[in-house]
Amino acid sequence: MPFKVSSDLLDQVRTSISVQDDAALKELLVDLHHADVAEILDAINTEEAAYLVLLLDSEQTSEAIMELDEDVREKLLDNLTPEEIADEVEEMDTDDAVDIIAELDEEIQQQVIAQIEDEEHKADIQEMLQYDENSAGGLMAKELVRVKETWTVAGCVREMRRQAEEVTRVHSVYVVNKEDQLIGRLSLKDLLTSDTKTKISEIYIPKVDFVNVNDPAEDVAKLMQKYDLEAIPVVDDQKVLKGRVTIDDIVDFIKEEAEKDYQLAAGISQDVEADDSILTLTRARLPWLFLGLVGGVGAATIMGSFENILERYALLFFYTPLIAAMAGNVGVQSSAIIVQGLANDDVKGSIGNRLLKEMLLAALNGLLLGLALFAFTAIWYGDTRAAIAISISLFAVIVMAGIIGTFIPLFLDKRGIDPAIATGPFITTSNDIFGILIYFWIAKMVLGI
Amino acid sequence: MPFKVSSDLLDQVRTSISVQDDAALKELLVDLHHADVAEILDAINTEEAAYLVLLLDSEQTSEAIMELDEDVREKLLDNLTPEEIADEVEEMDTDDAVDIIAELDEEIQQQVIAQIEDEEHKADIQEMLQYDENSAGGLMAKELVRVKETWTVAGCVREMRRQAEEVTRVHSVYVVNKEDQLIGRLSLKDLLTSDTKTKISEIYIPKVDFVNVNDPAEDVAKLMQKYDLEAIPVVDDQKVLKGRVTIDDIVDFIKEEAEKDYQLAAGISQDVEADDSILTLTRARLPWLFLGLVGGVGAATIMGSFENILERYALLFFYTPLIAAMAGNVGVQSSAIIVQGLANDDVKGSIGNRLLKEMLLAALNGLLLGLALFAFTAIWYGDTRAAIAISISLFAVIVMAGIIGTFIPLFLDKRGIDPAIATGPFITTSNDIFGILIYFWIAKMVLGI
Repeated sequence: MPFKVSSDLLDQVRTSISVQDDAALKELLVDLHHADVAEILDAINTEEAAYLVLLLDSEQTSEAIMELDEDVREKLLDNLTPEEIADEVEEMDTDDAVDIIAELDEEIQQQVIAQIEDEEHKADIQEMLQYDENSAGGLMAKELVRVKETWTVAGCVREMRRQAEEVTRVHSVYVVNKEDQLIGRLSLKDLLTSDTKTKISEIYIPKVDFVNVNDPAEDVAKLMQKYDLEAIPVVDDQKVLKGRVTIDDIVDFIKEEAEKDYQLAAGISQDVEADDSILTLTRARLPWLFLGLVGGVGAATIMGSFENILERYALLFFYTPLIAAMAGNVGVQSSAIIVQGLANDDVKGSIGNRLLKEMLLAALNGLLLGLALFAFTAIWYGDTRAAIAISISLFAVIVMAGIIGTFIPLFLDKRGIDPAIATGPFITTSNDIFGILIYFWIAKMVLGI
Repeated sequence: MPFKVSSDLLDQVRTSISVQDDAALKELLVDLHHADVAEILDAINTEEAAYLVLLLDSEQTSEAIMELDEDVREKLLDNLTPEEIADEVEEMDTDDAVDIIAELDEEIQQQVIAQIEDEEHKADIQEMLQYDENSAGGLMAKELVRVKETWTVAGCVREMRRQAEEVTRVHSVYVVNKEDQLIGRLSLKDLLTSDTKTKISEIYIPKVDFVNVNDPAEDVAKLMQKYDLEAIPVVDDQKVLKGRVTIDDIVDFIKEEAEKDYQLAAGISQDVEADDSILTLTRARLPWLFLGLVGGVGAATIMGSFENILERYALLFFYTPLIAAMAGNVGVQSSAIIVQGLANDDVKGSIGNRLLKEMLLAALNGLLLGLALFAFTAIWYGDTRAAIAISISLFAVIVMAGIIGTFIPLFLDKRGIDPAIATGPFITTSNDIFGILIYFWIAKMVLGI
């Protein structure tokens, strides 16, 4: 059953730390899953967390450290010496170790790496630090089970037992040739069912999906989702097997991407959380609000330039927030659908067709909403001409907002820019300004002023 | 390497279908992954797709059908008889079979189920149809490898080989007692390394995570993510092993949830895609736009009630779109952070503390933005009093918007309502109205009118 860290347990841990009762702490925590240890490290203060990390077995704490939020982890590691950090890194899979080390200051990085005792682990980490964080090389772990095609099943099982001790989970067994190039995979079923003297070259499956170390993480995620893969081998340009990416890393990647897009749509520009400091949250939010401020000043300036009709048609000015809001809402809807479609490779056909469709869609929405607004304003204010002016403007603004909302993300995507930045404040602000401009133009035309 | 369905291949498939060259079609498609077959089924028209489904092996097409979008699948199945659908369902894992059948009309459902020949499969499907779609029971598959504690390793391996033929991937081997209750799991490593005469009861691991058939899918997803599980067994209230949920289902679930939240934030109320029909898209978008329209009319009515100050302070009216936009932006930011925090179980502390923090944050943002707006308006219009009125109002509106944006999702969550509906148009519309109301009140006070 889902285990929840109770406040009772937390109290006990805190008390035991304060009196340095190491035996009690070990007894309390030794059987906990590392994800639960992470919850405890997150809940207690940094000095207490550092105390626990040094006390408990690195095998347990190294995994727990990986589960922490980056800002909590940063503070925790600040309380550890390079040697103490190296002890934790020593126990981590290479991909986790590299993630941790990459977060440290340049100078500390070198000190930590120098303290790693396992030379192979050290070399692996140094190799992986060279890959882009958002590439297959950056996501992969070096730990995997590899067998040579020349081995027998018996030798293979023997070697697998040895390798499997280093590997948390055996997803697939990869088969390589003498040059360490990936040539296929082995199913556990076949291994279980074959005679022990059979050569691997006779039973391996030559059809194997793989990615290049330099492939973007996004492509790896798409590929693994499309083919429901739980692990995929990673090779270099010479097809030498370098590592593998597992589905849990992809789950994290998908979640992070979705959260990033969501935050961009909401006008939040960094990866922040509700529990971050007010300063961090302000840094993430203020720029977008400032953009909105500039847009609002622009809208006010446009309205000011129509001041001469204010006396006769005050009504027009009362409806500017409605126009701005509708332009913003339609723009966000259109851009969100395109951004999501692009992320899922779901947007087919040319930009022209896409714009045409959005125009028809916006026209349909605009017509229905324009009619509703006309009915209300004509009856409520008894001024049919003003009602016509406002409703036709609304229609035009909705169509324009739909087109802009569709075009901008498609345009950004074609230019290789993340289209997600086009949702949220960016699109609402530009649509506010355009919307109010179009609104007054059309109203002036309709009213003949 | 990522395989892409080329337009060449599509043309060949289309031509071969039109001349009914079955041999050519089989040769073209027999080696394709089912995800690629799905891409082809999606690209050709419904009649062509139905032709392919009947022609190709159900083992391949049944998986491809699962990969299709729901609306494409619906049209395709409309072109098949219940017996033809049953042939496909026969080859599917129970969880997929149930998903497909649940999508059919009640009447067709019964006909399809009646045509399923494998009695065990039929019974499994009927059992699973009773579970809520968004529960562990709705997500699980019946296919898994189970061994009894009384067996030996040799017997176990023999039995596993038999069961493994039905199971696409062996994640874990689950150990049950005589009553079929889950008592533990078996690691493949231990199985590989134990003597063949060893009893399972001696080597199984009694510590095993599991969920109840009635647990909500969301909790299952969180648990599997937290503990990096690739499969989790599902039991009923008597702890009898009923099935297992695998990580690929969870990946789909996480993606769907993220997309749903994203769409709600953008003001889109159904699960729609860029390629859906204009009517479907309108149904998903129009209600939110109508909400915005009502809000805009409300704002206009409020502004109308202040018409008497229009002549002396036209400036105030020019800044209403800015006020509305800022109220909306701040509200969306605040609510998005809370919604995401709630989804990740990241929101700690009381509602009171949370509101206090958001108030401080909004006050900081409001102060900086208010000062910027004051500097601009005071210099640009040369009217210090009006500039003070507008800036102080902006400050107040930002603080209010932050509080509302934080409070509403927290309140909805406490009431058991999905807080994601509080983002997007809902929050922008209510904040527009409140914002403009507060703005005029404060402006009137400051200006002494």
